[in-house]
Amino acid sequence: MTLANRPTILTGDRTTGPLHLGHYIGSLRTRVQMQHEATQFLLLADTQALTDNVGRHQKVTENVLEVALDYLAVGIDPALTTILIQSQVPELAELSQYLLNLVTVARLERNPTIKEEIRLRGFERDIPAGFLTYPVSQAADITAFKATHVPVGDDQLPMIEQTNELVRKFNNTVEREVLVECEAVLSSVTRLPGIDGKAKMSKSLGNAITLGATPDEITRAVNNMYTDPQHLRVSDPGRVEGNVVFAFLDAFEPDVAKVDELKAHYRRGGLGDSVVKRVLNERLQTLIEPIRARRSEYEADRAEVLAILKRGTEHAREVAAATLADVKGALGLSYFAQ
Amino acid sequence: MTLANRPTILTGDRTTGPLHLGHYIGSLRTRVQMQHEATQFLLLADTQALTDNVGRHQKVTENVLEVALDYLAVGIDPALTTILIQSQVPELAELSQYLLNLVTVARLERNPTIKEEIRLRGFERDIPAGFLTYPVSQAADITAFKATHVPVGDDQLPMIEQTNELVRKFNNTVEREVLVECEAVLSSVTRLPGIDGKAKMSKSLGNAITLGATPDEITRAVNNMYTDPQHLRVSDPGRVEGNVVFAFLDAFEPDVAKVDELKAHYRRGGLGDSVVKRVLNERLQTLIEPIRARRSEYEADRAEVLAILKRGTEHAREVAAATLADVKGALGLSYFAQ
Repeated sequence: MTLANRPTILTGDRTTGPLHLGHYIGSLRTRVQMQHEATQFLLLADTQALTDNVGRHQKVTENVLEVALDYLAVGIDPALTTILIQSQVPELAELSQYLLNLVTVARLERNPTIKEEIRLRGFERDIPAGFLTYPVSQAADITAFKATHVPVGDDQLPMIEQTNELVRKFNNTVEREVLVECEAVLSSVTRLPGIDGKAKMSKSLGNAITLGATPDEITRAVNNMYTDPQHLRVSDPGRVEGNVVFAFLDAFEPDVAKVDELKAHYRRGGLGDSVVKRVLNERLQTLIEPIRARRSEYEADRAEVLAILKRGTEHAREVAAATLADVKGALGLSYFAQ
Repeated sequence: MTLANRPTILTGDRTTGPLHLGHYIGSLRTRVQMQHEATQFLLLADTQALTDNVGRHQKVTENVLEVALDYLAVGIDPALTTILIQSQVPELAELSQYLLNLVTVARLERNPTIKEEIRLRGFERDIPAGFLTYPVSQAADITAFKATHVPVGDDQLPMIEQTNELVRKFNNTVEREVLVECEAVLSSVTRLPGIDGKAKMSKSLGNAITLGATPDEITRAVNNMYTDPQHLRVSDPGRVEGNVVFAFLDAFEPDVAKVDELKAHYRRGGLGDSVVKRVLNERLQTLIEPIRARRSEYEADRAEVLAILKRGTEHAREVAAATLADVKGALGLSYFAQ
């Protein structure tokens, strides 16, 4: 990304629960930086969340505001980043509908991300059509805002491929460069484990530290963290690999020398879990304290948060409507245009 | 349908070519009657036509006006019937998107209508996702206007079943009666054959008589009609079954006694094809003449036709938007509502 050619970033989250430190380290932190360097659209993906949450729509819609609070709390500035609610931009549904004609069912079924997610959710043959086709609506999100860069984990690369296939197919069909291809921006950060040592931090697994966690909740979470089960006595040598406390220190302690020193000490023995946990606890308390404070402020003024989301969504609609007008124009679907 | 409970009808056509006598007898005639007895929405289904016409979008969009001209020519009165262009009612795409989550891919693949159409189009494994899912967008069309009655051929019954399944699934999910089930209205008319004797009249098969046909075109078509290939001499007995001229007389000659007499004469021999064809030609000339005249009048004032479509589409949007607001409200997707 060069500043000469200002990139446009599309990113966001399914609104299925408040965000946690895994999100902070994996995406939120970067978004806060990137809003100074790029035109950034941040999607509260409620419509997408509904594709695999039929019957749980309340959870999805109630968490729109929760996730928005998290965004504002970590420092997303609505003056720099356009925060929008997906379901309130009908242009995305329309664009999606046109893109759906350009991809076969077989191609969607071959998408490795979808395959894996179908497996995880145990859908098997009972895949909701909306779920199978959500990569198409994701392509609509990306292309509606003419995003040039999309931050993804490497498991999401097939989604970007799918999007660019649709872009090329559409432009070929109308023989015009209407939609823009995008580039995946791979996160360099390794995934933060859950406090129980499981590979993924997740609210639903109960192994997460949320961004609004109280000081007590943070301390309790750190104390419950999975370390090295063989490290029984302080004097024993301990393992750093697979030790959640060190994984967190790697992620959140900027003083690398200090972390290296702790690791060395832990490895040779003589450093108790409680000491390392105290260091981490202090670090996390320092990190989360201002986030929690800002979150509370915004939480007390929900009308203002809604107003922010409304302004963001309105701006997003303008941009998406312009793309959609080009798309429909190219297809000849502008009967009433002057 | 009782007048006490005024029905709402949703009907329409894919805009892939001008309409012909098969449409007239199969649906248009009934629509002209029904507009006095029901609230009628008449859909110029360009979006649906696009699902299996990728790369032929020009054909689809250019025929929107052609089909509209046919509607007006046969006597559809825009003061009684709401004529709308599907692609210009974005609420339909939105509603469709929510319904997509309520049906599985397997269920869509089991739809006999879709199965048959996939076969006819030779899609096999290369079914465009938009095509597989078009029954869902059809359900959105029907339910957006809270249609109670949908005229269909018996091959389309599975579409109505699918729609009602989605209605029940949606209402169950939100625990509210938001969408309305509909009833299929089966046409009592047998399908009009093509002039070549093929089972289906179709513009693309070149065996149709369009509603704007000139007197010469009508005469030529009647003269080319498939009769009884064994009926070589006038004195020979002839077959009425499978004889296109008699099929047309059954459909268009209101004087049933006269048709019966002709049939009896033809069967016993002594009645030449040219005589029966002359009778049919006169009948069709009389039928089409005023239609063609009205069509030409409207054709000369395309701005007026566009204005009619615009008014119809605007009214349709209001109705669809009200349903969509209920749908989104029931799902909790109305963050900015007062």
